[in-house]
Amino acid sequence: MKTHKICMLGTGLIGTFYTMTLHNLRGRDRVHAIYSRSQERADKFAKEWGIPNTYTNLDAAIRDPEVNVVVIGLPNNQHLEAVRLCAAAGKAILCTKPLGRTAAEAKEMLEIVEKAGIFHGYLEDLAYTPKTLKSLASVKNGALGRILWARSREAHPGPHSDWFWDKEMAGGGAIVDLGCHCIEIARNFIGKEVRPLEVMCWAATQVKPIDAEDSAIGLVKYANGAIGQFEVSWNYRGGMDLRDEVAGTEGNIRLDHFLRTGFELFTSVGLGGYVAEKAESETGWLFPVGDEVHELGYPNMFVDMFNAMENGSSPMESFYDGYVVNAIIDACYKSAKTKQWEPVQLEVWRGSNDIDESQVFESYDEEHYLIKTEILPDERKKIILKHKTSGELSQKVIDKAK
Amino acid sequence: MKTHKICMLGTGLIGTFYTMTLHNLRGRDRVHAIYSRSQERADKFAKEWGIPNTYTNLDAAIRDPEVNVVVIGLPNNQHLEAVRLCAAAGKAILCTKPLGRTAAEAKEMLEIVEKAGIFHGYLEDLAYTPKTLKSLASVKNGALGRILWARSREAHPGPHSDWFWDKEMAGGGAIVDLGCHCIEIARNFIGKEVRPLEVMCWAATQVKPIDAEDSAIGLVKYANGAIGQFEVSWNYRGGMDLRDEVAGTEGNIRLDHFLRTGFELFTSVGLGGYVAEKAESETGWLFPVGDEVHELGYPNMFVDMFNAMENGSSPMESFYDGYVVNAIIDACYKSAKTKQWEPVQLEVWRGSNDIDESQVFESYDEEHYLIKTEILPDERKKIILKHKTSGELSQKVIDKAK
Amino acid sequence: MKTHKICMLGTGLIGTFYTMTLHNLRGRDRVHAIYSRSQERADKFAKEWGIPNTYTNLDAAIRDPEVNVVVIGLPNNQHLEAVRLCAAAGKAILCTKPLGRTAAEAKEMLEIVEKAGIFHGYLEDLAYTPKTLKSLASVKNGALGRILWARSREAHPGPHSDWFWDKEMAGGGAIVDLGCHCIEIARNFIGKEVRPLEVMCWAATQVKPIDAEDSAIGLVKYANGAIGQFEVSWNYRGGMDLRDEVAGTEGNIRLDHFLRTGFELFTSVGLGGYVAEKAESETGWLFPVGDEVHELGYPNMFVDMFNAMENGSSPMESFYDGYVVNAIIDACYKSAKTKQWEPVQLEVWRGSNDIDESQVFESYDEEHYLIKTEILPDERKKIILKHKTSGELSQKVIDKAK
Amino acid sequence: MKTHKICMLGTGLIGTFYTMTLHNLRGRDRVHAIYSRSQERADKFAKEWGIPNTYTNLDAAIRDPEVNVVVIGLPNNQHLEAVRLCAAAGKAILCTKPLGRTAAEAKEMLEIVEKAGIFHGYLEDLAYTPKTLKSLASVKNGALGRILWARSREAHPGPHSDWFWDKEMAGGGAIVDLGCHCIEIARNFIGKEVRPLEVMCWAATQVKPIDAEDSAIGLVKYANGAIGQFEVSWNYRGGMDLRDEVAGTEGNIRLDHFLRTGFELFTSVGLGGYVAEKAESETGWLFPVGDEVHELGYPNMFVDMFNAMENGSSPMESFYDGYVVNAIIDACYKSAKTKQWEPVQLEVWRGSNDIDESQVFESYDEEHYLIKTEILPDERKKIILKHKTSGELSQKVIDKAK
Repeated sequence: MKTHKICMLGTGLIGTFYTMTLHNLRGRDRVHAIYSRSQERADKFAKEWGIPNTYTNLDAAIRDPEVNVVVIGLPNNQHLEAVRLCAAAGKAILCTKPLGRTAAEAKEMLEIVEKAGIFHGYLEDLAYTPKTLKSLASVKNGALGRILWARSREAHPGPHSDWFWDKEMAGGGAIVDLGCHCIEIARNFIGKEVRPLEVMCWAATQVKPIDAEDSAIGLVKYANGAIGQFEVSWNYRGGMDLRDEVAGTEGNIRLDHFLRTGFELFTSVGLGGYVAEKAESETGWLFPVGDEVHELGYPNMFVDMFNAMENGSSPMESFYDGYVVNAIIDACYKSAKTKQWEPVQLEVWRGSNDIDESQVFESYDEEHYLIKTEILPDERKKIILKHKTSGELSQKVIDKAK
Repeated sequence: MKTHKICMLGTGLIGTFYTMTLHNLRGRDRVHAIYSRSQERADKFAKEWGIPNTYTNLDAAIRDPEVNVVVIGLPNNQHLEAVRLCAAAGKAILCTKPLGRTAAEAKEMLEIVEKAGIFHGYLEDLAYTPKTLKSLASVKNGALGRILWARSREAHPGPHSDWFWDKEMAGGGAIVDLGCHCIEIARNFIGKEVRPLEVMCWAATQVKPIDAEDSAIGLVKYANGAIGQFEVSWNYRGGMDLRDEVAGTEGNIRLDHFLRTGFELFTSVGLGGYVAEKAESETGWLFPVGDEVHELGYPNMFVDMFNAMENGSSPMESFYDGYVVNAIIDACYKSAKTKQWEPVQLEVWRGSNDIDESQVFESYDEEHYLIKTEILPDERKKIILKHKTSGELSQKVIDKAK
Repeated sequence: MKTHKICMLGTGLIGTFYTMTLHNLRGRDRVHAIYSRSQERADKFAKEWGIPNTYTNLDAAIRDPEVNVVVIGLPNNQHLEAVRLCAAAGKAILCTKPLGRTAAEAKEMLEIVEKAGIFHGYLEDLAYTPKTLKSLASVKNGALGRILWARSREAHPGPHSDWFWDKEMAGGGAIVDLGCHCIEIARNFIGKEVRPLEVMCWAATQVKPIDAEDSAIGLVKYANGAIGQFEVSWNYRGGMDLRDEVAGTEGNIRLDHFLRTGFELFTSVGLGGYVAEKAESETGWLFPVGDEVHELGYPNMFVDMFNAMENGSSPMESFYDGYVVNAIIDACYKSAKTKQWEPVQLEVWRGSNDIDESQVFESYDEEHYLIKTEILPDERKKIILKHKTSGELSQKVIDKAK
Repeated sequence: MKTHKICMLGTGLIGTFYTMTLHNLRGRDRVHAIYSRSQERADKFAKEWGIPNTYTNLDAAIRDPEVNVVVIGLPNNQHLEAVRLCAAAGKAILCTKPLGRTAAEAKEMLEIVEKAGIFHGYLEDLAYTPKTLKSLASVKNGALGRILWARSREAHPGPHSDWFWDKEMAGGGAIVDLGCHCIEIARNFIGKEVRPLEVMCWAATQVKPIDAEDSAIGLVKYANGAIGQFEVSWNYRGGMDLRDEVAGTEGNIRLDHFLRTGFELFTSVGLGGYVAEKAESETGWLFPVGDEVHELGYPNMFVDMFNAMENGSSPMESFYDGYVVNAIIDACYKSAKTKQWEPVQLEVWRGSNDIDESQVFESYDEEHYLIKTEILPDERKKIILKHKTSGELSQKVIDKAK
């Protein structure tokens, strides 16, 4: 197996999490070059993580001769430029989320990497959490039957760097920052081959003194009739709320990635310092997550990326996925303004065009559909039926078997 | 204190739950007369619960001379007629949910009882669960600050009687059946004095062979900028999913009323019979609720109703509340068709007209608003600010205090 | 149905909880007389709860002519005297837990009430919680198979009145105060007809400046081989920890009565005042229980007591049960000193003498017992067997069926 | 950083988990040689995991010239012999749990590796779970104050290979198999420098047709007065129950490693195959753990082992720890027979001898100790005090501040 030498662009929280992930657990792949606008910050970061080379020039960092993979951990408004430079240098690219600020920007990046023929991965970490990956496998195995609904929720007290709060630099507010995760999680559960048709979105600035939205709720309707639902907020109190739910005709899954994971701690004196990302309280009942980067999907994500690079395959999350997410977000912003459902504009669609909402009803006997069966408190059994031709409803009550 | 003699209209699941509630716990108030279309069913019910009088004629039941309160536990399409008869007989009325099939029907009922000057209660049990009542008290005490969002979710495998599945008799599908609960729960959390302005609703028939919707999601926007969110389904697998969440500027509440209440049971052999309302599995991990009627709010609801009758006050939930809920549901059905936000038409509005979305930003110093504060993994503290006049964003990083 | 008029002895926390329970929920049974050593306290209590008569003389209170039931909510060292007076007056008695300070004291009370032929109930509320009652029903239905182990845990930061901390008045420390609950809960799960044979107990004063134990762990061995396990502490931080577990050959149950009941609240500003019994924090994540008295079993307990009085039957918990609990506690204190298993001395035993540890092994085929079956990660199935005569162990590995 | 070449002894479940851990996540360290008694099994395993060399001769495997570390994943009765061979070959050793079948055996292994001067690690994975490591850090930071009690519980339906059920080969039953984990987890929480003084243990064969115990509960008393509690069973139904709790004077921690980790799945049709180690049901509510090997501590354990090897330091868990655990287990078996507390015989003790139970009481004022403070339901505050010299108890009640 190969060893990858990585150039990390950015020394913020995300660059820290990525580097922490890559350098722990005795992995083969190492950060070889670090870029920051500030030499002081680059030096400090390099020293902390044992990184040989530092840069304050973006192109020079990317062109570091030993580096074969570039990780983009920069503010959203710098992704496109970084992608251009990487493509020119012929380096593989792993880009943090969201891919672009708009679908147009994301599409340009997609075209650049495909034209250059370089490897591209979209660092959508939350699609890679241990629970999400196992859930996706169960969904693919049919454990839930036909998927009807997927809800993904991310809410916390707001991001940790100034540029996130600048609508121009970030490309929006909580939808761009958090909704990109939720949209892609739901899309994975519903199926990437299924076309997202239209969206309905509410967005508001409920609390913060900013131009962008600090809260939003959105519905994404897919070609098979399934609904993706996202809820995002920068106003949530109590920590980082990361929950997903999926429901199908045969079952459902509930995931809590961060606040209720089987780790509960009460302290009257406090831990003294860092509890977990976005944690708010220091005493009383706390809910520290076991292994933060693992629960957030970082290790699995990088393993998939590097394995795909070596296998010559595409990772689970590529620039194309980032583009679809941006297209859905664009429609969300439009809907929030027009106050009606808006179509998702996908100039490039690589999924299926043959999926529709058609469904099959369960038959009770030749003449009736079965609507439902229920055991009553007195243990009688009730069966609700519908006549196939007349449409007439009826019910049977069956006494408890002796 | 008085003893009430009740006429129960209907011997279905809801009539059973109501009677079970009233006759347990050594209460003073008793069901004195039971009405069913079937004499056989009335007799059986009367025998089971020790009820002296049985009727198959609705008006005669209501006019039973010893009865002073009538509980309407009939299919939705019979509520209006029953209200008319009770008003004519001058009896107090407690009507199950939803009040009407439409706002027009509900408004007519409201006018009838107000004109007749009789006591009227709206049996919205889920607003009375122990957890909901305590949560409402906390919200009123300001524990969550300004309320921003309230989510209420009810989902299960579908109702237990044929008429629920008949769009005409029921007045709709899952929205009318389950959404009426969710809408009123959110409205209680956001505040009954706050006007619901407009709604956005998605509704679909995803699984069942019926005309009405079996799934829906709705957003209700209130005058203070808060959002009520409901999710309802008749396609949910795994039991009865009854969860609420409320979030405000200072905190949040999460409630699970039925599936995760601190009672977990694994059995390889089964319980043999009834587990809980809408339960689906009989072996493996089961989650039986401790005291079903109590967790569903029935005892608290009747206590409030009878106490209000004696105090000459209005109960927490009256016909007016039922009317508001129906008006919101009407707007939901319209929105589901027009695919845009639809105004809530309230010809009768008794809340405040002086509430708007205006908000106050938190100041950091004279020149800046505080956007947020966060402890980073390396224990540095970050403060994000916005200049009050220039709007410029900035951040301060403060090293960990020694 | 009858209406009972109750004399409440004691105005402390337990008297408050009992009265709150009896006077809420529109019950028929009312507190008619209240006794306190202090007239001021009695008056205040009477006013708060609408109680007609007040007393500062114990015998006079008991002999209030309208009263037919006396509830003993006094410190442990006054139970015996109160029982004597009630018996002399011929009044029914409901006595709070523990019945006595020792088995000798409890036995004397039992003899007094049986000689006087009066109704007697043991107010072991935690055997009556909604979850416990439903669990007991499941256990009786065989849902868990043969019961092997029952663990009951009660821990909190210590009791609220001075006399609890006085070893002489209370009869001990945390074992007498909390262990009495745990012992009886486990005994209910294992079966009241099964004789408790011997106990092993560790007790220590780990934190508090007191003579009695503030922490203890005990094992109670029953005639059928089942083990009851209790853990009690007055040093627990974080609220009132009330959890039970039961395991049998076919399943298990886990109960959380107070801290994790599906009610979670985060507040950065606090609730302002009372959260729940023994709650410690006022901000951050709090876990207020929905309906405190209900979750603690008070309403169900009084319903059982009064129904039993009317039916001429014995309540689920009688003075005999209180006596057995005291006998087990006596053995615990002895074991804590001798550091070995000590027999439970039961001069009066009314359960079965025919239960032993004999068990039946599951056969795999004529020649082998089945030890276990397991699915391996590679989906092969393993079966572990023991030869019935040679005792030889063997295993079979079966490849996954196609 | 170095790359280690590992010889894996054993191809059972534990060998599989170890290899899975080492070969996933793009680690530098690889299994280079695999030993099995059966060539067929060795070949199959080698092929599945990409291992170059296979052996059926133990010594030859250990002496594979490229191998520098040997992992012992053999039945308990073969550990000592394998250690001897590794020491003779001068290879570093990582030995699975328990180290020996008895303290004598473990002590011999300890002496062998120390005499040979080779690196030795004790593969106590459950001390390395993400939640345990973070909890240990919190405990060391003082978040819980002085530790009073640590409970560790492991229960499942029994092990997957025949030799575990053979008392002679395994060295015992559930105590040796599962208790070794629990004992060491509690010891970590209480502090490895604190001497375990004596144990009290109940052990029984409640269900299975075996000679060894299938259930046990034990208490381990430490020199500082803290109590370690373990509960183990091979009769538990419902999956693998892995829970720990720790309580101190300032707080407590509750961990659930396997069954309640924020991943809940309901399926009416099943997953088709492997759910998780020891899972029992295939439909209904299932609780699959996200990343099984990670939640069980394997990756963190190997990282610590290999990092320690490179740093020339000792890993968190060494053969000495394994020896202490065996000594505690020996005392448990003795206590189970003698039915009294038995001293832990530690011929080699490397911790502190200066720790005792002395404690400091909290003062309320110069004359009184504070026993406790509580807010009552009516919001009055109660303070319980003890006079420092007279020992007299008293209480103050303070009305709610306005």
